[in-house]
Amino acid sequence: MVLIISVFGHGRKCGKTTTVEVIVRELTKRNYKVGCIKKIHIENFTIDKEGKDSYRHAKAGAKLVATASPKEIAIIRKIQDNPVEKALELMLHDALDFVIIEGRYDKAKIKIPVARSYEEAKKILPMNFLFISSLTPEKFPSYLKVLHPLKDAEKMVEMIISQSNISKTSTN
Amino acid sequence: MVLIISVFGHGRKCGKTTTVEVIVRELTKRNYKVGCIKKIHIENFTIDKEGKDSYRHAKAGAKLVATASPKEIAIIRKIQDNPVEKALELMLHDALDFVIIEGRYDKAKIKIPVARSYEEAKKILPMNFLFISSLTPEKFPSYLKVLHPLKDAEKMVEMIISQSNISKTSTN
Repeated sequence: MVLIISVFGHGRKCGKTTTVEVIVRELTKRNYKVGCIKKIHIENFTIDKEGKDSYRHAKAGAKLVATASPKEIAIIRKIQDNPVEKALELMLHDALDFVIIEGRYDKAKIKIPVARSYEEAKKILPMNFLFISSLTPEKFPSYLKVLHPLKDAEKMVEMIISQSNISKTSTN
Repeated sequence: MVLIISVFGHGRKCGKTTTVEVIVRELTKRNYKVGCIKKIHIENFTIDKEGKDSYRHAKAGAKLVATASPKEIAIIRKIQDNPVEKALELMLHDALDFVIIEGRYDKAKIKIPVARSYEEAKKILPMNFLFISSLTPEKFPSYLKVLHPLKDAEKMVEMIISQSNISKTSTN
């Protein structure tokens, strides 16, 4: 079973991507297979580049456009709704242990809000969360579990793993 | 059953992407569902952009990285070998009628070489091909079936459809 984690915060530059990076790195070190989804709110966003061949294929009406290069394949799909659900669905063909969504996803089993201060955090806190990730943990009351993504990386990942039923033995 | 078409040519700017565009557009017009794969030979190509959040996710070790925006999802997968086979495999989850590969793929049922002249074409012609696509058909001997992607679009697509067992009735 894949465990879904949502890492979300208020505004830009609050440390969301840093938090995702740290969690991915620590889980990967422990031999877990991790996938990531970046939620993007720009209406007409495309990862493709205008004028490129694959962009021209999509413009001509292709439902699915892929690039296949020696070390990477990318599949781009035009959709109408529910981007995160659709990305999750496609990822389930792989045997992943964790999927980390950068962006709010209320159905995630583990929620990790990211904020610079308690004032900011209050605007986004869900009913349940595992801990708060912050680059400035001193700006929070002491009764909250606040972890620093760079200093408390191991602690973060231990808490995440304790929520899963997956145990992995190092093959090194 | 999906029908796989390989469109390939010698060198750049010979009309490969134009040929793919035309075929996609004409098939789409006739209500076929088409997917495209662009073969890229650059060893370390990534569709992602350095420094972007999804690029950072992959760098941290994520096996699969996705972007989920309102009208598009993209799934980027790091691989070791056989990019075209792997892209095809992932595309088979969708009910496509045709997959067009821009690049040489000898297992394709339909092969369409693209060339500017007979001299050029001779370097790449496979044993079997459906027709040659060329922006300069006058540079070929008359006994070869050479179609112009912009002038003979309908003819191209009729020949392709005649090779498939799929019949589609317009729903318009």
